[in-house]
Amino acid sequence: MTTLDDLPIRDDLRGRTPYGAPQLDVAVRLNTNENSYPVPEPVVEAIGKAVAAELRDLNRYPDRDAVALRADLAGYLGHGLTVEHVWAANGSNEIQQQLLQAFGGPGRTALGFTPAYSMHPLLALGTGTGWVAGVRGADFGLTAADAVAQVRAHRPDVVFLCSPNNPTGTALDPSVVAAVLAEAPGMVVVDEAYAEFARPGTVSALAVLPGHPRLVVTRTMSKAFGFAGGRLGYLAADPAVVAAVQLVRLPYHLSALTQAAARAALAHRDALLGTVTAIMEQRDRIVAELRARGHRVADSDANFVLFAVDGDQGAAWRTLLDAGVLVRDVGLPGWLRVTAGTPAETDAFLSAMEKLP
Amino acid sequence: MTTLDDLPIRDDLRGRTPYGAPQLDVAVRLNTNENSYPVPEPVVEAIGKAVAAELRDLNRYPDRDAVALRADLAGYLGHGLTVEHVWAANGSNEIQQQLLQAFGGPGRTALGFTPAYSMHPLLALGTGTGWVAGVRGADFGLTAADAVAQVRAHRPDVVFLCSPNNPTGTALDPSVVAAVLAEAPGMVVVDEAYAEFARPGTVSALAVLPGHPRLVVTRTMSKAFGFAGGRLGYLAADPAVVAAVQLVRLPYHLSALTQAAARAALAHRDALLGTVTAIMEQRDRIVAELRARGHRVADSDANFVLFAVDGDQGAAWRTLLDAGVLVRDVGLPGWLRVTAGTPAETDAFLSAMEKLP
Repeated sequence: MTTLDDLPIRDDLRGRTPYGAPQLDVAVRLNTNENSYPVPEPVVEAIGKAVAAELRDLNRYPDRDAVALRADLAGYLGHGLTVEHVWAANGSNEIQQQLLQAFGGPGRTALGFTPAYSMHPLLALGTGTGWVAGVRGADFGLTAADAVAQVRAHRPDVVFLCSPNNPTGTALDPSVVAAVLAEAPGMVVVDEAYAEFARPGTVSALAVLPGHPRLVVTRTMSKAFGFAGGRLGYLAADPAVVAAVQLVRLPYHLSALTQAAARAALAHRDALLGTVTAIMEQRDRIVAELRARGHRVADSDANFVLFAVDGDQGAAWRTLLDAGVLVRDVGLPGWLRVTAGTPAETDAFLSAMEKLP
Repeated sequence: MTTLDDLPIRDDLRGRTPYGAPQLDVAVRLNTNENSYPVPEPVVEAIGKAVAAELRDLNRYPDRDAVALRADLAGYLGHGLTVEHVWAANGSNEIQQQLLQAFGGPGRTALGFTPAYSMHPLLALGTGTGWVAGVRGADFGLTAADAVAQVRAHRPDVVFLCSPNNPTGTALDPSVVAAVLAEAPGMVVVDEAYAEFARPGTVSALAVLPGHPRLVVTRTMSKAFGFAGGRLGYLAADPAVVAAVQLVRLPYHLSALTQAAARAALAHRDALLGTVTAIMEQRDRIVAELRARGHRVADSDANFVLFAVDGDQGAAWRTLLDAGVLVRDVGLPGWLRVTAGTPAETDAFLSAMEKLP
């Protein structure tokens, strides 16, 4: 039998395994930061109608520029943004891949402050962009001075910031974004996948866009909108950035079904985002309860919580799984990540946590 | 205002414009090789139902490996292929991009025999793969000896063959694929986007897969299936190739809606592929009629025809457009490409052709 080793794959891919959390059939799945609430019935009906209206003409290619969808996304974001400031793709992974194809690539580098979204280095690998693993403070914090010093040392073509950061959960102080923007020689990408869950008073990098054409804010409908299965990520930036990613995007990358479904979901944003407050309550409940039990817990502005366990986190992950609760081992020694879902899921998680030694 | 030139985009992207034919609102659109027949009503209903069944759970990520869809695609292809031999993505563009990410990339090269599918060099550019533009004979033919000599001269990591070739329309003799496979040091990708339209007796490279782990055949549902708006491309190859692209694919790249819609379309393949014979008849009619009028015309195994015009093809393109028929100027001096659609569209095209000087 032929194996991967027999094929002429790139040397930097040899020995690797595909990215992805185990897709296990467990009662309580709190491992991929999905929104635990199913799509409400009126929204199901609206999306179904919108998609059905496209089906007869599926023989035709979709709008290559997804203009109507991008206008709707701009309307949702506010901040005076228009269709020209917004670009959409199949998940924010594809958005960030396009950004690296346009601004990174061979002979260039991207810097991230780890632990952060673990796809960033993989997207760099897949686009031939050199990856520089920057560091965070001992408490996973990132100060402006720390960030600027690393940008100055490495002069990366692309800087990734995550706010709120995944897997730690904490939003960045706007002064960090401003300081990195002032120092960075290239593009600064702020990944705001979890922005809608941030604690009151958190400032989005969207507010910083005017006058900063090298700043890009990426978002997703996978989390707060409960649209993970629909695959819709997007960015907001100067129109020149949108023009840049159009040079590398695959033509017709967004299907007619995706465009129609996402537009219908956006039209029913109130119903979909109605779950956000309930999820934030469970998030805060998990943080408070775990701290009360003596765990170290990172501050969270997201729909998940990073918490410390005694001893090996892999063993703790297995104990929780055996108790019917799937959480995420992100490879941080002594730490695990749990998604905040429904009250019943929090009950199950907190109960399973009692099985840990 | 900030322009593209003000941004730190890659030098090799400077001065370029996005790929894509004009999306114009013209009565007769024969420029992107779409299937002119709308999706039949019973298939519209079946896809609608299949998609509707996914909507409530859109809050969950889709099956990352699209196992059921890949099994269905394998069943459609036949040749003893199974789910392990097949991989799917958002159009064959994404399939080919993934292949270049795994087997091409920085420091590696890909060779194509131009004129061929014009996305191949752009996919090379977007993945940092060096592009070698091979050549075809004066009649756009490609002999085994010609192809082998160019492979030997350039030693590319990836060779692209197109059968039937786009934009010329002619299928490759299987001896060419076999000869290239024997000579090529790396992967050989046969792009069979138009395979279902080939003239009787044409042999697919699928028949050559057993025992050739460096051979990849790519296909699409955009053409014969009339599913361009649904965006579904796929490949068949040794299971090790499928394992290789999984190292570079974006996780959850295929939405739950895409997977469900494509499966429903495949289940109704008889209804969808029922248009193929009618389209081949129009294709043959266009070839015969244009030759009768004295045009040079390439042999076509696809749903389009490449034909020669007197003088500048850009002027001829404009004349046809003014007559209400949109065809494709693929940048070949003296040649234009027209899609074979409905009998009425052929009538309109042949009538518009009479306006040419």
